[in-house]
Amino acid sequence: MNSFGRLLRVTTFGESHGPAIGCVVDGCPPGIALAPEDFARDLARRATGRSRHTSQRHEADEVEILSGVYEGVTTGTPIALLIRNTDARSKDYDAIARQFRPGHADYTYWQKYGLRDPRGGGRSSARETTMRVAAGVIAKKWLADRHGVHVQGWLGQIGDIAPKGFDADAIEGNPFFWPDAAQVVELEAFMDALRKSGDSVGAKVVVDATGVPPGWGEPVYGKLSAELGAAMLSINAVKGVEIGDGFDAVAQRGSAHRDVMRADGFASNHAGGILGGISTGQPIRVSVAFKPTSSLRLPAPTLDVDGQEVEVITTGRHDPCVGIRATPICEAMMALVLMDQALRHRAQCGDVGDVSPRIP
Amino acid sequence: MNSFGRLLRVTTFGESHGPAIGCVVDGCPPGIALAPEDFARDLARRATGRSRHTSQRHEADEVEILSGVYEGVTTGTPIALLIRNTDARSKDYDAIARQFRPGHADYTYWQKYGLRDPRGGGRSSARETTMRVAAGVIAKKWLADRHGVHVQGWLGQIGDIAPKGFDADAIEGNPFFWPDAAQVVELEAFMDALRKSGDSVGAKVVVDATGVPPGWGEPVYGKLSAELGAAMLSINAVKGVEIGDGFDAVAQRGSAHRDVMRADGFASNHAGGILGGISTGQPIRVSVAFKPTSSLRLPAPTLDVDGQEVEVITTGRHDPCVGIRATPICEAMMALVLMDQALRHRAQCGDVGDVSPRIP
Amino acid sequence: MNSFGRLLRVTTFGESHGPAIGCVVDGCPPGIALAPEDFARDLARRATGRSRHTSQRHEADEVEILSGVYEGVTTGTPIALLIRNTDARSKDYDAIARQFRPGHADYTYWQKYGLRDPRGGGRSSARETTMRVAAGVIAKKWLADRHGVHVQGWLGQIGDIAPKGFDADAIEGNPFFWPDAAQVVELEAFMDALRKSGDSVGAKVVVDATGVPPGWGEPVYGKLSAELGAAMLSINAVKGVEIGDGFDAVAQRGSAHRDVMRADGFASNHAGGILGGISTGQPIRVSVAFKPTSSLRLPAPTLDVDGQEVEVITTGRHDPCVGIRATPICEAMMALVLMDQALRHRAQCGDVGDVSPRIP
Amino acid sequence: MNSFGRLLRVTTFGESHGPAIGCVVDGCPPGIALAPEDFARDLARRATGRSRHTSQRHEADEVEILSGVYEGVTTGTPIALLIRNTDARSKDYDAIARQFRPGHADYTYWQKYGLRDPRGGGRSSARETTMRVAAGVIAKKWLADRHGVHVQGWLGQIGDIAPKGFDADAIEGNPFFWPDAAQVVELEAFMDALRKSGDSVGAKVVVDATGVPPGWGEPVYGKLSAELGAAMLSINAVKGVEIGDGFDAVAQRGSAHRDVMRADGFASNHAGGILGGISTGQPIRVSVAFKPTSSLRLPAPTLDVDGQEVEVITTGRHDPCVGIRATPICEAMMALVLMDQALRHRAQCGDVGDVSPRIP
Repeated sequence: MNSFGRLLRVTTFGESHGPAIGCVVDGCPPGIALAPEDFARDLARRATGRSRHTSQRHEADEVEILSGVYEGVTTGTPIALLIRNTDARSKDYDAIARQFRPGHADYTYWQKYGLRDPRGGGRSSARETTMRVAAGVIAKKWLADRHGVHVQGWLGQIGDIAPKGFDADAIEGNPFFWPDAAQVVELEAFMDALRKSGDSVGAKVVVDATGVPPGWGEPVYGKLSAELGAAMLSINAVKGVEIGDGFDAVAQRGSAHRDVMRADGFASNHAGGILGGISTGQPIRVSVAFKPTSSLRLPAPTLDVDGQEVEVITTGRHDPCVGIRATPICEAMMALVLMDQALRHRAQCGDVGDVSPRIP
Repeated sequence: MNSFGRLLRVTTFGESHGPAIGCVVDGCPPGIALAPEDFARDLARRATGRSRHTSQRHEADEVEILSGVYEGVTTGTPIALLIRNTDARSKDYDAIARQFRPGHADYTYWQKYGLRDPRGGGRSSARETTMRVAAGVIAKKWLADRHGVHVQGWLGQIGDIAPKGFDADAIEGNPFFWPDAAQVVELEAFMDALRKSGDSVGAKVVVDATGVPPGWGEPVYGKLSAELGAAMLSINAVKGVEIGDGFDAVAQRGSAHRDVMRADGFASNHAGGILGGISTGQPIRVSVAFKPTSSLRLPAPTLDVDGQEVEVITTGRHDPCVGIRATPICEAMMALVLMDQALRHRAQCGDVGDVSPRIP
Repeated sequence: MNSFGRLLRVTTFGESHGPAIGCVVDGCPPGIALAPEDFARDLARRATGRSRHTSQRHEADEVEILSGVYEGVTTGTPIALLIRNTDARSKDYDAIARQFRPGHADYTYWQKYGLRDPRGGGRSSARETTMRVAAGVIAKKWLADRHGVHVQGWLGQIGDIAPKGFDADAIEGNPFFWPDAAQVVELEAFMDALRKSGDSVGAKVVVDATGVPPGWGEPVYGKLSAELGAAMLSINAVKGVEIGDGFDAVAQRGSAHRDVMRADGFASNHAGGILGGISTGQPIRVSVAFKPTSSLRLPAPTLDVDGQEVEVITTGRHDPCVGIRATPICEAMMALVLMDQALRHRAQCGDVGDVSPRIP
Repeated sequence: MNSFGRLLRVTTFGESHGPAIGCVVDGCPPGIALAPEDFARDLARRATGRSRHTSQRHEADEVEILSGVYEGVTTGTPIALLIRNTDARSKDYDAIARQFRPGHADYTYWQKYGLRDPRGGGRSSARETTMRVAAGVIAKKWLADRHGVHVQGWLGQIGDIAPKGFDADAIEGNPFFWPDAAQVVELEAFMDALRKSGDSVGAKVVVDATGVPPGWGEPVYGKLSAELGAAMLSINAVKGVEIGDGFDAVAQRGSAHRDVMRADGFASNHAGGILGGISTGQPIRVSVAFKPTSSLRLPAPTLDVDGQEVEVITTGRHDPCVGIRATPICEAMMALVLMDQALRHRAQCGDVGDVSPRIP
């Protein structure tokens, strides 16, 4: 289960401190222009070391295309992407190789497999998400070219701080993917203090996909909402997912929640663009809760592999808020789900064509 | 994609007002005692017409076992279960056969397939969830017998009302699966007023699984959290899912969130029993947000199949709060995910055995 | 693994002497006209008791459509089909409930599951193939309507007897699906003598699909040949599969085997319509070897469940040559594979369109 | 569909003349010792240029383990293997880049994808099978260590020549995997003449797996025979598969075919170790028909991409008989199917344990 998707199928491999990470993207339609430099923008957005507010591990993240592309376009055969790890410092982990960091996957991997690769968290490291972002680039490209679909994420909350305004143009202009430029100074001070304290904090990422036509998604177990939920909850540190109004819907009345339909469009989008598991044609909105990371300089009681109570301190290079860099990861997962569903919809309903009324 | 699970695989079929609904449960181990009466309790818990607070459709919900059981035990071959629909009143739907109820799957099914079965919502009806509950009975049985795992859900919120206390013994003693008996009178008054108003309300269901050993779940895309998320978000009307602290983790510090491990156990369970996608041995907790249903007596503007603006009123028998009856459905989905993951764990790691330290 | 196919997905259930057999066909495109009477012709072709040369079990084989069809057309939701068993005579099996018939699945089911349903062979009975034929009817319909593809099988050998001539019109005119009417009298005499002797015999079924466009099939593990092979080898009693020239290719030279391409067509079809796992546009030909059945009146030494050596005699109603009735079963499996691959091809390559040169 | 298997899942990638080929083996149990040198023997057995009777392309075939192994043992996370292509001579293919070789996948890839990578056949090249052999090494290791299962293949026919005797020890002592050493001189002369003629020839590979316990395999669509059939038919150039007696069973009587069971064992093995899709405990035998390759120096009429009739001559380095080197490939596919089925069996029937009577 290191694969994701049904027709557009992504398989990733690699450990944080192994020789390389990579992925195989299978089922991609032929004829899509693809070059190594296409991956640069999103990998940079996700990269560690981009600002002082994220982990200081500096990876080159150079993508080698090993297969599936000939004369600059995809051939329909599996696209293999490879990134060599270049800045792994495994000795940071010697101290904790025999300890279980509270809140981390150390203990559960140990219990499941009877052994574990402690260097940088091994397979449980968020390093794996690099390949999700790479695979997502292909999906974003196809969605934009073929269907005019665009995916954009931003930070919707960090600790107790929420955006006061929303300016889409501000998002890419600061290291927090924050939609209100006026708050960036406040955020920088908040993060500097947090980093100094040795602690970490949670965050909420919001992702919108615009341009999705009505009809994508499979009812029942393949609902668009179900697959988006699985996609997001498969990302490291995620503890919650909402579609549209999400948990706010618990306190709502049906008369307020339902999105009234008029000839000139829907009057609202409480549904987040999905009804019955199928896209409505409105923007698809997903919110994702990231927990605060558990690799802290602050000591904590824990156990070692012999069952002895010890104190653990993590001294490696870690993000004080993983949610920040998760923004492009959430976008990638959204794009992968949408492209997969688009292909499945074409398979089953390719003869249906456009149906009236199509609400703008 | 009317199938769910990888090794324990459930396929459901049937429409709200068709002749029958049913499911096929494939991959079940042989030798489990199973009889038609085993399904009665959970189907009654989910059933409509159990109290005046839910839909007044009265279905007998009698399960016929068509295959997979011989001399009272499962044989390892697919278990097919069938329930005939007995109280469908399709004429209720004549008025809305050509209209799209706002907030309902009417419009999206129409857009996807170019046609739809309007009787009772057809396949998009929550009637389908009856078979999830039936399949879940088998999983609950195996989990309890083989691993001592128990799954219990309750209502964690309805509209603005949350439980003041928590008494596990109270849950099954009232029609709301409410864990504080002292609030039941208040809830009844609330629901009576709601029903009279013609409106509906959202709800939150919480489910705990106790007794799950550490090590279940597959890292990366098959994370326990990801599969629980997909399971819950595949249920009708679900708009959000949380594992453990869920969205509360956004505002938490890492030093507070991480669950400290001591020889006598974990000090807390913010993680909801899952780290790195794998069970920790603590109770697994999932919270699920249900939106208020959109089938209301209150009129709303909408469109018809010709694109004309019309007013829609839904007069069929509907739940003012679908979240109430969703409690056993969420339990069933939790049980199905856990049993599937238990079988997968045995497949890959059957030789690993118990590993020290095992935290109680 | 009682499911077959990836996008068009068939799940079957039911035992030979259980209350019913059935299937769920998921992923079918919407808008296909479908009625219970559509299944009659192929079920009759497969039915037992059609002539004195097959088992004398007389099943009504009346198909009930439980879901997925509304106002006479498919809706895109799962199509469930049910057939009640009406002529099961389980007492025939009392004698052998504790014995393992040599050459039968009795022993292997027992070893796998630790128990078995001995009535009529339970799940291992060819009764299951009834639902394959039913599901295949849907695939045949779609293939013919949408793509002009037609699937036709016949008997290519029975014991040592092979057809002397080939007349497609003769196939449906005799109880053996034999393509040379002049040999039918000989075959009847052969089968009468065989039946009298208490023995059984093997057979070879050949199936052609005409009208398949070039481009269907997925290279590598999803080759059309691989999926046709799995489809045929999943039928009871099958021990071999050939594509095109099959084992004859072992003794051929490449200069003779390769099918030369000219502007007016291929010069030959040694490949059986498949190159590199993908259809060429020529007829797809598959040959299937059926072993002689092992349920014989002739006694044989064997073991019972206590490990004692005993003599077994099978007295139930059995086919002296299962290959005969397997003809429509092989057709059904061919049709299901082709429709599934056609949908997958549309998903990935729906934008490719027709490519020159297209060889007629 | 560049993936194979359900629980032990192999995904391959790479083109004949791309920078590298590779695979990801997912679902492997933890704790298996694995090093790069483990792959050497089987890769050498499959390698081109091993004798003058196979293609003269000389690939180093050095395996790099990119992930999934820590301190010399598997960790349970995906094992990625990479082999760089070092001896690709793409200019050999300039002449045929716009022509379709008869009997080759050139035309069908073109029709499916609308474009193709002509260098060395791109993805359709048998170079892909290198990674099957590598993945198979892991499966062979686990099967031998955990279950005492051994897989051995040999050449059962080449052109019209069949082995006269059978000596298991002779197989690895000659470049033909031929079980009768006395015939090797004859074979060498045959191959030398064939190579000189510019033609190619077909072959039959036979593979036995010994030590398989009874009970592996899933009845109905996951039959051991069905999955072995798909596995073999997914190999390049395969046109037929037999289990046990295969097509010989067509002419047999049931009284002769059925394998009588006695307390000291089965009296024969016409079934090839599989009944009802499940292993009997006897050796599993599969025979595979390879067609003669179609890349010949001998000219043939064909079409080019403009639909013009042209003459094609293939001058690259090709095998005059691909069946020879296919022996370890067939072994690998057998091992992968068996390990996958063993894991699935443990998942569903892990509690069943050994059942009496167990025939030796």
